[in-house]
Amino acid sequence: MRLHPRTQAAKESIFPKMSALARELGAVNLGQGFPTNPPPPFLLEAVGRALGRYDQYAPPAGLPPLREALAEEFGVVTEAVVVTSGATEALYVLLQSLVGPGEEVVVLEPFFDVYLPDAFLAGGEARLVRLHLTPEGFRLDLAALERALTPRTRVLLLNAPMNPTGLVFREEELRAVAELARRHGLFLISDEVYDELYFGERPRRLREFAPERTFTVGSAGKRLEATGYRVGWIVGPPEFMPTLAGMRQWTSFSAPTPLQAGVAEALRVARGEGYYEALRQSYKRRRDLLAEGLKALGLRVFLPEGTYFLMAELPGLDAFWLVREARVALIPAAAFYLQDPPKDLFRFAFCKTEEELSLALDRLSRVVNSPRET
Amino acid sequence: MRLHPRTQAAKESIFPKMSALARELGAVNLGQGFPTNPPPPFLLEAVGRALGRYDQYAPPAGLPPLREALAEEFGVVTEAVVVTSGATEALYVLLQSLVGPGEEVVVLEPFFDVYLPDAFLAGGEARLVRLHLTPEGFRLDLAALERALTPRTRVLLLNAPMNPTGLVFREEELRAVAELARRHGLFLISDEVYDELYFGERPRRLREFAPERTFTVGSAGKRLEATGYRVGWIVGPPEFMPTLAGMRQWTSFSAPTPLQAGVAEALRVARGEGYYEALRQSYKRRRDLLAEGLKALGLRVFLPEGTYFLMAELPGLDAFWLVREARVALIPAAAFYLQDPPKDLFRFAFCKTEEELSLALDRLSRVVNSPRET
Repeated sequence: MRLHPRTQAAKESIFPKMSALARELGAVNLGQGFPTNPPPPFLLEAVGRALGRYDQYAPPAGLPPLREALAEEFGVVTEAVVVTSGATEALYVLLQSLVGPGEEVVVLEPFFDVYLPDAFLAGGEARLVRLHLTPEGFRLDLAALERALTPRTRVLLLNAPMNPTGLVFREEELRAVAELARRHGLFLISDEVYDELYFGERPRRLREFAPERTFTVGSAGKRLEATGYRVGWIVGPPEFMPTLAGMRQWTSFSAPTPLQAGVAEALRVARGEGYYEALRQSYKRRRDLLAEGLKALGLRVFLPEGTYFLMAELPGLDAFWLVREARVALIPAAAFYLQDPPKDLFRFAFCKTEEELSLALDRLSRVVNSPRET
Repeated sequence: MRLHPRTQAAKESIFPKMSALARELGAVNLGQGFPTNPPPPFLLEAVGRALGRYDQYAPPAGLPPLREALAEEFGVVTEAVVVTSGATEALYVLLQSLVGPGEEVVVLEPFFDVYLPDAFLAGGEARLVRLHLTPEGFRLDLAALERALTPRTRVLLLNAPMNPTGLVFREEELRAVAELARRHGLFLISDEVYDELYFGERPRRLREFAPERTFTVGSAGKRLEATGYRVGWIVGPPEFMPTLAGMRQWTSFSAPTPLQAGVAEALRVARGEGYYEALRQSYKRRRDLLAEGLKALGLRVFLPEGTYFLMAELPGLDAFWLVREARVALIPAAAFYLQDPPKDLFRFAFCKTEEELSLALDRLSRVVNSPRET
């Protein structure tokens, strides 16, 4: 008896593995992207009120008040919204629905790790287009993107604000991507789970430039600091959404009902009470604390324009050595590249407390400077 | 632009469709299998306590206290347990992991509706073995089961207590199925989401007879009257479980953390305080109320030995007519058969209040007897 060969996609992801190591070794965990702080009280209270009232199956497409809250926010009809068990299921269902054997998905590299197994499990193949890493940071190469397209390409997948680079695409880049997709008859998937986490101007959404072909993926867990609540969504062209809802009913039937009810209420409160703005300010402080601290150690830092991740170089150091010896958990760039990752590059999650960030800097200062001091 | 042909699996299931119709038309909903009563207070309180403490990603294999509670209950090592986003995800991930193109799954007919799309989405095919419908009820035909096996069969899928028939298999039947699987080198999937809902002797579990090849699927939603909580599990041979956990990380990453924490606590309380025994008594009362009421109308009833479903005949009536005209929502047998369903057969869910059951009987009495009275 053997499992089906497709289970080769099942390798343990480095994110939970590094979190388990951090717990075991008492390391500061700047690896996996989950916040140290609890979710806002208005979410906890809304979920508390839903218990005993919203306990049974929700419709596969989502609990009506949540779909309505999202539709209002995105300026679309309710039928354009399907709720999923986290953005993970949204991405899985999209790839299963849009791509099959012999077909291709174009993905930017570095990539969030689920895209590749999602494409593989759909029977498709990911074609990677590497971002340029310049002294000023990561840059999208539109010509390379166009060269990656083949007659078998079905989907172009973007992630913005982008994990792990923190990149936010410019309006002219989004416009060009939309134009490319239109010319080649492609679907667009825009993973925007960090849509409320940006440090400059509010970024435009890819869907504004190609609403007829764009599926926007979002996450209550990322927005409301509750990554364990498993409430995500897809906003897309209404004519395709009943089919996506029909597909997601087989993967987990429906997202957790009391958490959907709580999120529906919390999304309105968050918007109304300036929660996202306060969150951005808080993250900007932490981003700057971490970036300045790393620079003070003489390290090269790529300042993110969004997300709660920052990439920086730690010359000559290894992630498993770091978690064991320096007791700081980080994710090596290799986790985001299929091969030949940029040397010495690491992803730091700063969705942690200022105390944790300071402790990590302190611990890193000993291992980063020690070779020079001797 | 078109969706991938595998999305033909996306047709809307009759269960949410019938629930939506029932709501819209003010019908008593004996269709979809979710309880009218709220979950027990000890579950609501345990989840309430988890909010603000268990809010971030759980490990894909499950929150440790929940895996431990289940391992203790099943008498297995913790590594034998993987938590999923409901039993729906458990079944999906199992079919994806065990079956591929050109391979077959043997499924008993009538079947719970997810098995067929799950097999199809794995690229495999379901071979149906029909239960005999005798005047005494549904009966498993072991010879027909064996005849259905081919060199391409990978999995034999059983469901007990069985939805929609309410059947519980005898020890000698389970032993024979295990023996058959061993002789043919097959995996066994045993969908036991109604494992605590039986009306006679406690049923044996299939895994007792073939622990090396059996994956048992369970559901906190069914056990604790909270179908919207999306906490299910797979208990299986430890050597396969890391791979299953690795596969389920791509479908929804992890089950909702605060609900996992609450369920972990509630499972121990339920066992310790005789909750399941009380639930069985309550369901037995409701089963008998419904069965006697239907018999009093002169209808043929197949009394279930487990589950909260009952099948009965309503000669000459149609499910959509019933929900509209009699305002009673039922699921027609056709939902559980690929073709040629037994004539006039319907599934009644009695996980509803006694008031709802009485109201349904009253409404049915008008439409069932009226042709005879005229």
